[in-house]
Amino acid sequence: MKLTPLADSLPASVPFVGPEAQERARGAPFAARLGANESVFGPSPRAIGAMERAAREAWMYGDPEYYTLRQALAAHHGIAAKNVVAGEGIDGLLAYLVRLLVGPGDAVVTSAGAYPTFNYHVTGFGGTLHTVPFKGDHEDPEALLKKAGDVGAKLIYLSNPDNPMGSWHDANVIADMIARIPEGCVLCLDEAYADLAPPDAVPPLNVTEDRVIRMRTFSKAHGLAGLRVGYALGHADLIGAFDKVRNHFGLGRVAQAGAVAALADLDWLAEVQARVAQSRDAIAAIAEQNGLTPLPSATNFVTVDCGSDGGFARAVLAALITQGIFVRMPGIAPLDRCIRIGCGTAADMDALRVALPKALAQAVS
Amino acid sequence: MKLTPLADSLPASVPFVGPEAQERARGAPFAARLGANESVFGPSPRAIGAMERAAREAWMYGDPEYYTLRQALAAHHGIAAKNVVAGEGIDGLLAYLVRLLVGPGDAVVTSAGAYPTFNYHVTGFGGTLHTVPFKGDHEDPEALLKKAGDVGAKLIYLSNPDNPMGSWHDANVIADMIARIPEGCVLCLDEAYADLAPPDAVPPLNVTEDRVIRMRTFSKAHGLAGLRVGYALGHADLIGAFDKVRNHFGLGRVAQAGAVAALADLDWLAEVQARVAQSRDAIAAIAEQNGLTPLPSATNFVTVDCGSDGGFARAVLAALITQGIFVRMPGIAPLDRCIRIGCGTAADMDALRVALPKALAQAVS
Repeated sequence: MKLTPLADSLPASVPFVGPEAQERARGAPFAARLGANESVFGPSPRAIGAMERAAREAWMYGDPEYYTLRQALAAHHGIAAKNVVAGEGIDGLLAYLVRLLVGPGDAVVTSAGAYPTFNYHVTGFGGTLHTVPFKGDHEDPEALLKKAGDVGAKLIYLSNPDNPMGSWHDANVIADMIARIPEGCVLCLDEAYADLAPPDAVPPLNVTEDRVIRMRTFSKAHGLAGLRVGYALGHADLIGAFDKVRNHFGLGRVAQAGAVAALADLDWLAEVQARVAQSRDAIAAIAEQNGLTPLPSATNFVTVDCGSDGGFARAVLAALITQGIFVRMPGIAPLDRCIRIGCGTAADMDALRVALPKALAQAVS
Repeated sequence: MKLTPLADSLPASVPFVGPEAQERARGAPFAARLGANESVFGPSPRAIGAMERAAREAWMYGDPEYYTLRQALAAHHGIAAKNVVAGEGIDGLLAYLVRLLVGPGDAVVTSAGAYPTFNYHVTGFGGTLHTVPFKGDHEDPEALLKKAGDVGAKLIYLSNPDNPMGSWHDANVIADMIARIPEGCVLCLDEAYADLAPPDAVPPLNVTEDRVIRMRTFSKAHGLAGLRVGYALGHADLIGAFDKVRNHFGLGRVAQAGAVAALADLDWLAEVQARVAQSRDAIAAIAEQNGLTPLPSATNFVTVDCGSDGGFARAVLAALITQGIFVRMPGIAPLDRCIRIGCGTAADMDALRVALPKALAQAVS
């Protein structure tokens, strides 16, 4: 066995340690699972029903063209099916996008502290990552554009709304950025949280524009992280190119059925949006009661400034985990003065309300 | 947008046209779905139950380490979890394997007419494919080894039992081949049909041997093609390398739960094995009643020699499809004198019994 020089150079890593691994390590399940930006409110009952029906038909491969799903997504977004590609979560689509656009040594620009799985794929295909810092807890379009021009980037990554900070830019800021993407460069606009953002945070779709591709998912507002269905919207040429490299049967029949049913249940989506908004308020209130500063959020989590440095926030996080509250935090200063708390049920919020003061007491001691 | 030179060179293709696309084209569903080597006998009822339960928990990401599934697979095969990697079907694992081992211009050897998705991935990562012919409707280990030596191959593909011919080699032939794999080369031994083969077709596992990796799947005997779960067994160094490139959340919670439950239900597996054997006999009898020659099969399909050339077999296939019987056939001469008929229910066999003589009459006219 002899790996390629590129593969040989890569670390064998898991970009995220899952809560299951942490539960195995601590020997007990978490009481509240608030760290992976999942939707504890669950999927649409109609999606559950569709998955149950599909389970009985799971002996059949899924349609490799994802026809029904892509038609439904196209109708939902008012575009054509040729402008929609679906895949194994945004993670899977990021891998395909990087593979299509980034060869060994090609430059890619992202923000220091932004989505690590994007970086994993860039490194994995031999690209060279260039980062710019966040600015005031926001990704910084101006700095990303400038860096992209300086290094001749093939690809820029920006999430809006942002993970891990929960912040967002107005649609006109993003539209202006898209208009200024350098020739030969593509903006990967990760809109995983678009369904949970204020409407004016999401610029209108323009699939004649080939300098941007927009990533969406069923893992967040639709509550289907465990199905792994993401999709991308963009120019037909770029979207069509995914057929050159994708795992054509990668989305099975159960996944496609669940996603189609979830998309059709806009009442459930509205219900989730309301519960998320309520829980964001609850998290903010709990944070403030404990003297911490909740940052504004357009996502299904609230990033909470613990008021000190990364060491302190890590101590708070560790103490919460010890108490059975699964949360995560940004990895890079100065973002790492914060912890990131996912929206939850009333019971989750009660658990957080009890645990946070204890965690803070433990962290200062 | 500017694709990499490699991506630019690739065709935008779907390796297989799905039966759903054919149904859309013909404007009617198939009466019998016997073309994709699926298990019409369905998944284990326990797997269905597990998927139904997991559907309600689908808001949670699956464990990115696939811990429970890999532990179960390791126990099932009597090896360690470090010798097992799971992924998005064998197709997904083939992509990862090729990516790890095959760089631009690297030589890869397979059989002309063997699994096209393997070729798709080799081309997709810039490898150079070299083929050898089948020999007597079998893949030819001697020819594969000789070609691999001649071209300095990094990777050899062999399926045993074989798709599309249903043929198989005895375990000692495969074991002998493994022992003679050239240094620096890996044999990808696709054992998708191992659960349906005679025991003496499957060599014992030896995970200290780093020149072979063995691909298995839940899509065939386990009846879970629509979940997309495959796995590979091999040396810990090669298996561990998959962590460098894989989509770590690629198998969702529903997929992992279904696979774990299926693996635990060996009674269902035995039931499927019995029904497959019965249906193989039924297909063979129907073929013989129509003057055709069924080839021996160690899989869940029977490849039927139509007794003439590819043109004739294609006409038979087209006529069957017109009658609502979904079947496929090998793509390359002389294998393409055959059609490939999947095992089915009694109703499927009845439909085939009615349709085949009509299809033959239509093909000769």
